[in-house]
Amino acid sequence: MATNSIYQYSLVNALMSGVSSQGITTSRLLEKGNHGLGTFVRMNGELILLDGTIYQLQAGGQVRIADPNDEIPYAIATHFEPQQTHAVKLETKTSVDDTLETFAKQTNNLFVSYRVDGVFRSIKCRTVKGQEYDNQPLSELGKTQAVADYENIKGTIVGYRVPEIWQGIFVAGEHMHFISEKRDVGGHVLELSTGGSEVQLGLAVIKDIHIELPTSANFNAAILKTDDQGLKSVEG
Amino acid sequence: MATNSIYQYSLVNALMSGVSSQGITTSRLLEKGNHGLGTFVRMNGELILLDGTIYQLQAGGQVRIADPNDEIPYAIATHFEPQQTHAVKLETKTSVDDTLETFAKQTNNLFVSYRVDGVFRSIKCRTVKGQEYDNQPLSELGKTQAVADYENIKGTIVGYRVPEIWQGIFVAGEHMHFISEKRDVGGHVLELSTGGSEVQLGLAVIKDIHIELPTSANFNAAILKTDDQGLKSVEG
Repeated sequence: MATNSIYQYSLVNALMSGVSSQGITTSRLLEKGNHGLGTFVRMNGELILLDGTIYQLQAGGQVRIADPNDEIPYAIATHFEPQQTHAVKLETKTSVDDTLETFAKQTNNLFVSYRVDGVFRSIKCRTVKGQEYDNQPLSELGKTQAVADYENIKGTIVGYRVPEIWQGIFVAGEHMHFISEKRDVGGHVLELSTGGSEVQLGLAVIKDIHIELPTSANFNAAILKTDDQGLKSVEG
Repeated sequence: MATNSIYQYSLVNALMSGVSSQGITTSRLLEKGNHGLGTFVRMNGELILLDGTIYQLQAGGQVRIADPNDEIPYAIATHFEPQQTHAVKLETKTSVDDTLETFAKQTNNLFVSYRVDGVFRSIKCRTVKGQEYDNQPLSELGKTQAVADYENIKGTIVGYRVPEIWQGIFVAGEHMHFISEKRDVGGHVLELSTGGSEVQLGLAVIKDIHIELPTSANFNAAILKTDDQGLKSVEG
């Protein structure tokens, strides 16, 4: 995988349909990138891949480093080398979009990968609890997810910006996972603010997209349909 | 590019928005596959890539071998090695779908690439005439396309079957281009029948999808929206 390209295993629509009983190993994912996000088998928690280490952010609040043989039913990864870095203030999650727009002009139909390092005045994260039955859809898991607010916390966000027409293949719009510097908390970012202080933003514009589809009977039996509202409610 | 993976340059939605003034060279496309289909700058005719040669099927009825520096604003290509070959009868274009289903079971959410060699009792092909103004949308070009019927003609179809949720990124469903054995006629296949005789079908199920997005200002300025009805009318 070339630097600053995207590798994705499976489809967000497959997760929405609950397809998460198996996947690629963490060691396989590490061949595809040093930076990324995803989930684990049975959607047990959130995955963040940061500087070549894969962490599992569990719904109970624990963080563990993934085992080489853990299976990953969905992930997106990049060998990330920022093309630009900037000190920025981010007042909301949506301000990330405006900020990326400022620095990466004429890239509306391209992908952007980024990381944000620094102290967050507040950050709201969710972690999905694992499936309670086979093929339980992600939209249902969204209703029982654990949500936590952290204040004045130092850490890193790994994020992707994906154009709207890719909704369902990827998560369209902004998709970010966070982990604290102490590697003790984190999750899928629902809201954030740097409270007027600056954090470091590194970004890369991406034109090469690689998707590896699962070949399992479970994946092929799934009815894949893009549910824009459902996706926004659970991945927004 | 590994054998039996898919490379696509640009997006079908970009063509629908008329983005076709520039692209990759034919020599670049040949690095990505020996088998494929697409179009040329300003959507001037249809492209078929067969056994490592790129042909331009022009609306006037001529066929030419592409120059190494011709630019291709949209194409899909594969280093194709059939995993299965079968002697089959094909009564309609939609019968291709049923036939693929027979041989490639449990692949509903995967891609299939195929070729069909033999004598067609009848085959209806269209060739798009090039744009008359910048960014003229493909849906409009569909209205002035040249359509021709051929009978008892020997030749080859290059085709792809793409799952429904990819509509707009790719052409969902069946997408086939035809060229005669004499390399004198061809086009985008609208209808076909082998009239009860057998033709040779070779197919490969594909799980690895690579998409390279254009970085031009023209591409990034385009409003990309999936028009399912419009796409079916022009690429169906």
